Parts: sequence; C-alpha cells; structure tokens
Amino acid sequence: MTVIPNLNIVPFVSVDHMMKLVLRVGIDTFLRELADAVEEDFRRWESFDKTPRIASHSKEGVIELMPTSDGTLYGFKYVNGHPKNMKEGRQTVTAFGVLSDVGNGYPLLLTEMTILTALRTAATSAVAAKYLARKNSRSMAIIGNGAQSEFQARAFKAILGIDTLRLFDIDPSASEKCARNLAGQGFAIKICESAQEAVEGADIITTVTADKQYATILTDNMVGPGIHINAVGGDCPGKTELHRDILLRSDIFVEYPPQTRIEGEIQQLPADYPVTELWQVITGEKQGRASERQITLFDSVGFATEDFSALRYVRSKLPSTGLYTELDLLADPDEPRDLFGMLLRCEAALV
Amino acid sequence: MTVIPNLNIVPFVSVDHMMKLVLRVGIDTFLRELADAVEEDFRRWESFDKTPRIASHSKEGVIELMPTSDGTLYGFKYVNGHPKNMKEGRQTVTAFGVLSDVGNGYPLLLTEMTILTALRTAATSAVAAKYLARKNSRSMAIIGNGAQSEFQARAFKAILGIDTLRLFDIDPSASEKCARNLAGQGFAIKICESAQEAVEGADIITTVTADKQYATILTDNMVGPGIHINAVGGDCPGKTELHRDILLRSDIFVEYPPQTRIEGEIQQLPADYPVTELWQVITGEKQGRASERQITLFDSVGFATEDFSALRYVRSKLPSTGLYTELDLLADPDEPRDLFGMLLRCEAALV
Repeated sequence: MTVIPNLNIVPFVSVDHMMKLVLRVGIDTFLRELADAVEEDFRRWESFDKTPRIASHSKEGVIELMPTSDGTLYGFKYVNGHPKNMKEGRQTVTAFGVLSDVGNGYPLLLTEMTILTALRTAATSAVAAKYLARKNSRSMAIIGNGAQSEFQARAFKAILGIDTLRLFDIDPSASEKCARNLAGQGFAIKICESAQEAVEGADIITTVTADKQYATILTDNMVGPGIHINAVGGDCPGKTELHRDILLRSDIFVEYPPQTRIEGEIQQLPADYPVTELWQVITGEKQGRASERQITLFDSVGFATEDFSALRYVRSKLPSTGLYTELDLLADPDEPRDLFGMLLRCEAALV
Repeated sequence: MTVIPNLNIVPFVSVDHMMKLVLRVGIDTFLRELADAVEEDFRRWESFDKTPRIASHSKEGVIELMPTSDGTLYGFKYVNGHPKNMKEGRQTVTAFGVLSDVGNGYPLLLTEMTILTALRTAATSAVAAKYLARKNSRSMAIIGNGAQSEFQARAFKAILGIDTLRLFDIDPSASEKCARNLAGQGFAIKICESAQEAVEGADIITTVTADKQYATILTDNMVGPGIHINAVGGDCPGKTELHRDILLRSDIFVEYPPQTRIEGEIQQLPADYPVTELWQVITGEKQGRASERQITLFDSVGFATEDFSALRYVRSKLPSTGLYTELDLLADPDEPRDLFGMLLRCEAALV
C-alpha cells in the first residue's frame, strides 16, 4: 500500500484569502487569466459532462447546485439567489465551490465563490462581448449598479478596453457607490437619471438587476442598431429583464440552451426559438456578429463550466501564493477499511 | 438595516471534531438519536422536495450530489464511490455535507460526512429492520466486513438488540479487523469461511460489499424463510449483490423508488415491479412484515433525506458541545451591494 501523507486535508480558500489572491495577482490580470480559462473551456465544450443546474426554489429565492466534469476534474458550485437578503444585510448571491479528482473522487479544493462568481460572471460576459460587440466599442451602459456592476466594468475594461460608463439604478445610492468604487481606475463615468438616458450612445448595454420578477429594464425603443446587450440579471424562472420585442429583433447567444430556456430571457420565447451557442462562436463553427447594425444579445445565466474554469484557475494559483488553509475534511484511517477503528483509537487517545 | 454579526462565518465540523462529537455523545446514544431523526423525517416524507441524486459516473467510480429540502432547511451531501481507492490507501466512500437556511440561502453548517454517512447508513438500516425483521431477531450475518460493517453491527445492537454476529469477507483479514474492533462490546462473534456458513441460523443478513459489478453475494438457496435481508452494498447502476431469484421471493422495501430502480438491487427487475416505500411502513399506511415466514428485503441505496436528518442532528449538538470551528466562507461586505468595495478596502488595508 502506498502511503500518501495528509489524505485528510483539502485546501480551503476563505473569503479573506480570495481577496488577497485577487489583489496579489492584480484585479486586471486575474480577470484576463480567468477569461482565458473560461474561453479555453468553452473551446473544449464537448469534453464536458453537462446538466442544467439543480435548483431548489422557495418563495424567497433559490438554492442551486451546478456540477460538471471534463473526465479528469469534477467541479460543482453551491449558489443561492435571494433578492430580499440585501435588506437584511446579507448578499443576494453567495456561493462556494469544490474541485475534485475524478479518478478517486477526493476533493482537491474548497473555496469561497461569492467573490469568485462575481469575477467569473464578469469575465464570461467580457469573453462573449469580445466575439459579439462591435470591434470599436468603448462605451457601456450598466443598468443595475449592485454587487456585480463594478466587476462587469473592470472586466470589460481589462478585456475589451471599455473606458466610458453610463450608470443607472432605481436606487441612486447604488450608482454613487459604483462610481465611487470605480473612481481613479481610468473610466469616464456618468450617472444617469433613467435607463433611457443610460443607453444613449452606448455600444454595449449590460443589464444586471436583481429583482426576482418579470421586469422590463429595457423596452424595445431603447435599443438601437449595432448594440450588444449583455443580459446578466435574468437568470431564474420568472426573472427576466428585457421586453420580449427586443429578443425578437436580436440575434441571441447563450451558454447552454437546456438551462437558458428555463432561466434566461428566452424563457419568454417558444422552446424552439433559434439561438446560437457561445462555444460554437468561440470555436469558429458559427458566426458571432455579422454586421455593424446587428443587435447581438448574450442571454447569460451562468453555467457550470464557467465555475469549473474558475475553480481550476484558482487552484493553479495556490502553490505559488500559499493563500489557503488546510481543512481536515476527509476521514483518513491508517487502514482504509478501518473507519470504525479510527473512532476507537480516537477514544483511546482521549482517555 | 439590521446588523447581524459574523455573517461570513459557517460552523465547520472536521473529521477530528466529528469523532469527538460521536464519542462525547456516546456511540450508542448517537446511533439511537440519529435513528430517531431519520425515522422522524421518514414520517414527514411528503414534506420533502425529493430528487434522485445527481451522479457523475466515470470508469473508476462515481461522484454524487444529494440535495433535499423540507421548505425550512436545505441539505446536500457530496459523496464519492471509488472501489479501487482502498488499494491506494484512500476511502472507497468519502463525503461532506452542508445544511442551509431556505429563507436566505446561507449555509448553517459544513461538516465531514465520511464518518457521519457510515453512522446514518447504519442507523437507517436499523430503522428499516425495526419494522421488517422478526421481533425476536438476535443474530445477524454481515457479508462484507469493510468500513461500514462495524457501524451496522453497533446500530443493530443499539436499536434492535442484535448480539450475535456471523462475519464473512472474501478477505479474512477484513473479518478479523471487524471482530477485533467489536471485541468487548457485548457481541458473540463468529468468523465464517463462506457466505453460506455466515447465513446459517441468522435472523438478519446484511450485505455490504464494495465491488462495482453485478456480484452474487447471496444465491437463492442461502435464504431461508423468515429472514430479513439488509442489502446495503448494491447502490449504483451496475453494482448489485443479490441473485435475482432472491428478489422474486422477497417482499421488497425501498427508500425512494425513482432512485432505487436505477441504483438498487431492483435494477435487475422490470421498472414496474411492485415495491413498498419504507416511509409508508413507518407511518402505518402500508404493512411491513406480515408473517414469520416472509422474506423481507430492504434494498437500501441511501437517500438524501437520511443525510438531511444527519445534518440537522449534528447541528443540534453543536451549541452544547462546541465541537466545531468557524469558517470564513461567505463574503460579508459592510453594505451588501458593496462586494467590490470590500476588495478595495482589503487592498487599502494591505498597503
């Protein structure tokens, strides 16, 4: 029998360590490298075992598990979505995740994913926009200026060079917070009085509101030719942001159709409405933006492979940074079949 | 805004703390109280949101997520099954689990579940046997003397008064380990040379082998009238322990038919073969054992509600024992929408 030391230990990245990791690597570098990992995994889309996330819905929100595997590694994320949380001082969305070795089933990493999800969502949005927005895009409207908004802005700057932001939120203090947090980071920022004002002249519109309802953040008349819409907030049955007419005028790009048809903006459309899968655009199998006047829509709901990419990226950073602790998570008896004996020896040691 | 302290913290029960918790409570008491929790939750079966576990199969084994919710609490377990692990000094089955608040989606507990799964599996087996085995049962054959065997023995003693064990394993050293671990705990133990010898005169037969294959641990001629079979090891597509003819002579009791038909012994039978749900026996809706000569079979695969019971039971023990640590798992910015600001403040603090 091979003796492998510390089989009981799983590296754990706490919230504090995640923040330090992001800062150590640098926010822009982290976003760029994470976007590369996300894009790489979209490129080998067919090697993943895919399933729509497993959702447990309640009146107040949803708890979801998002597993996937590439045959070598297995990852899953636990994530909740509870819009009312904010009023109680809690996060609308919190998450944690695990990466495991498919060969033996042992977890290799447990990490916070509240911050990491914000980063991977923004990185994924930027990857999609790289293929779908007009090449000369510089200006982005962000409608909904909550926890995700600054991450979107930073990712679009780091990956696409977006340097002009037009912010709108029904709560002006959210826009002020967003503008304050992004000050001195190379953006020209305008806080707008309405969604209508925010979208004026924008090359890209990012919608990222949190209400769990059929909302109409954008109406049809607000969307001009050539726009790329990055629709992030509609990600749950009964939770959409765009008027149906916008969808009908757009070319729609999605992550994983079986999940997006349940959760995305396209839940408003018939189940066979044509959409293009983002991975096929990335591999070159399908066309992304075809003309300067086309309206492209990335109907983003967040897919398990993106979390997988984030998990493997974070894991790759641990040896060099040491920004983790060791968690005694797995029972490791001296002899594997002797789980009960381990309990007895623990008892003997306590006496 | 209500300020709630330590929103970032999730109590964590490590392997070491789990062992100390079981020993502090006492193994028998722990098994009895856990069996009560399992039985309680079977009794309110209809209040649970149920789904077959989500399995990711590979050549070497399986990784599964097992979620459930009663509308107030949500629980899930991560568990792997890799029969080849033992040869590498690893556990065949390891697990951890999380209990969360449905109202806000925040985790309330993260715990090791390798030891806890062994305990809850044994407790569930004993609950089933309480309803299905002959009342005067004293003697149990255990075929397969690996990591789960002693837990089964202790649960059947604590809950049913089983005091005579007949052990068999294809590896005699496993039987010796089992007998050694159970010495001085009130059992009369016989190590047998064959499965045939082990079942002679036994009131209950527990099969708990680990090979991922269609095995035939028991053949039809080995099972006499009045026996209760507690079939624990067949719990995966392609992994069974009993000859099909035994199933045809038995009355079969299962946890959750949609899962058991995929994973249990009854995967050998047509999809509409009649089975009885254990919860209905516990509530009195259906009959359990009807006669002294009937062969009853608990085709156990392990269901998410049992892990839920185990999670809520462990959580109930934490305040009085303090046997946990605090994990910084959830981002908790001063203002909930200010996740990015938390990162900036961390940066400022590092300078």
